[in-house]
Amino acid sequence: MKGSGKLPPAARAVVEGDRRALARAISAVENGDPSADAILSAIYPRTRSIPVVGFTGPLGVGKSSLINALVSLLRARGRTVAVIAVDPSSPFSGGSVLGDRIRFEGRADDDGVFFRSMASRGAAGGVAAATLEASRLLDAAGFDLVLVETVGSGQVDVAIREIASTSVVVLVPHLGDEVQTLKAGLFEIADVFCVNKSDLPGADLAKRDLAEFVALGSTEGRWSPPIVGTSTLETKGVDELWTAVEAHESYLDASGERRAGERRRLASEIVGLVRDRVGQELTARLEGDPSLRGLLDRVVARSLDPRAAADRLRPSARPSR
Amino acid sequence: MKGSGKLPPAARAVVEGDRRALARAISAVENGDPSADAILSAIYPRTRSIPVVGFTGPLGVGKSSLINALVSLLRARGRTVAVIAVDPSSPFSGGSVLGDRIRFEGRADDDGVFFRSMASRGAAGGVAAATLEASRLLDAAGFDLVLVETVGSGQVDVAIREIASTSVVVLVPHLGDEVQTLKAGLFEIADVFCVNKSDLPGADLAKRDLAEFVALGSTEGRWSPPIVGTSTLETKGVDELWTAVEAHESYLDASGERRAGERRRLASEIVGLVRDRVGQELTARLEGDPSLRGLLDRVVARSLDPRAAADRLRPSARPSR
Repeated sequence: MKGSGKLPPAARAVVEGDRRALARAISAVENGDPSADAILSAIYPRTRSIPVVGFTGPLGVGKSSLINALVSLLRARGRTVAVIAVDPSSPFSGGSVLGDRIRFEGRADDDGVFFRSMASRGAAGGVAAATLEASRLLDAAGFDLVLVETVGSGQVDVAIREIASTSVVVLVPHLGDEVQTLKAGLFEIADVFCVNKSDLPGADLAKRDLAEFVALGSTEGRWSPPIVGTSTLETKGVDELWTAVEAHESYLDASGERRAGERRRLASEIVGLVRDRVGQELTARLEGDPSLRGLLDRVVARSLDPRAAADRLRPSARPSR
Repeated sequence: MKGSGKLPPAARAVVEGDRRALARAISAVENGDPSADAILSAIYPRTRSIPVVGFTGPLGVGKSSLINALVSLLRARGRTVAVIAVDPSSPFSGGSVLGDRIRFEGRADDDGVFFRSMASRGAAGGVAAATLEASRLLDAAGFDLVLVETVGSGQVDVAIREIASTSVVVLVPHLGDEVQTLKAGLFEIADVFCVNKSDLPGADLAKRDLAEFVALGSTEGRWSPPIVGTSTLETKGVDELWTAVEAHESYLDASGERRAGERRRLASEIVGLVRDRVGQELTARLEGDPSLRGLLDRVVARSLDPRAAADRLRPSARPSR
């Protein structure tokens, strides 16, 4: 490992494995605190692109129990694991995340597991960006991999999928109509399908349905999502699930997709950062700068429309046609 | 009404009440079709800031039936009404929206009602922006008001709340724990609380709970959200609900908040448009411009971190401290 002598103290503490410093740094990222910038810059060269495995699926399919079982499996194999639970902070999201938090706290004595929930204030893109930066902190802190759980609210799932190296879609038998209406969307999301609670009747049928559906969309030479049945009640299939995740991670390396995906993610992250900065600067100027206030006055008075106002503020941003 | 002679044909048709032209224009907005720009610019001076009433709440509280009952009430009073149902397009969202669509189609013979669902591709902010622009088209088309229904997925609800002039939060008795965990969030959202299915036992208790909660947060001279019980089964309370919405709309005028809110929304819309344009331009350049490709190479190689790269692309965007 590279020496950590030249790092600023907060970053050095993260790299040296100080769990409190890590938690503080993640909070700074989550809250958009300016102190996060220096830490993220300092730790970035020490990141290794560790696997980030996302788990999405409807509420009540047992994602948390599944992740808990995976953590036990991975710890038994000597891997260090960080879990990020993304809480959509919806006023209507229900209270399941609190329960997870309590469940994971039981591992407080094991330094090889780190649990963290991230609130998703603001846009779905915001929490995904914060989760990406938190994963990077966990990477620099030496964790072998990150598991990310979302609670099945669409926008956040899609955003998290974009930062995960492997996405596991968790379903249960007899989701019925719900699954039928979403099949197209599922394909874009899943690298691995998991039919959890496969001790329930109908599991084989659900797996067969999914297999037919996967076969329809499969392309020669491209990754085809495997379908794994699990049951956290009977602790069944959890190792097969992890084997499927590892197979996808190996595919990413062999096909060059890991490198391509990382490049794409970094490009989109940089664009997001520039967008945010432009937006913050402009918001401040629309309130503070008299000439921009005048522009806004004209829009309020209906003598200029919002798109024309945007053109005047950033005429060069519109690609010439 | 101003003459519509000088408008481009697609905009003129919208203003003159052509329903097919209106539907096409909304589709153009929804799909981000460039043809939407000219129509939106042309119709903007004809918009009047009509009330946009948002309805949010958990799945299954009966928002669609409630909106249907409100539409009947408003039509009986001679008002023209447009309804926008925002479909979060989640792969896990279930299929309730289709049902609504069918229900509303029964009014196809009444030209004073317009129903439209909007898919929320991409970020929550994206569908809110599209819904705002669709409301503007409906405003220019002469509708008296717009009702917007969301399906209770957090990010979209919050985004829609920002474009609504009045937000109705719809609950049912015995939501229990779910409501307890979200009370703080509710306050930011609600201008009016509606306890629907108030024929169910526990309705009075739910209303009393909400009233206590509202009393805790109320501030002298500011709007305090009224609590209305409704039952679409017994067609009870629907007129009281509308009276509460109208009271809030009057408050917006009397307090100056309508003007302030519109100004804030327009500022945030302009900022969003500029952000989007900057993002599109930069995304294209990161792939196409050799010097920017080199910058991205350095980030991939870990010799430059993403925030530093963003600084180089937009150094002036960071406010000086």
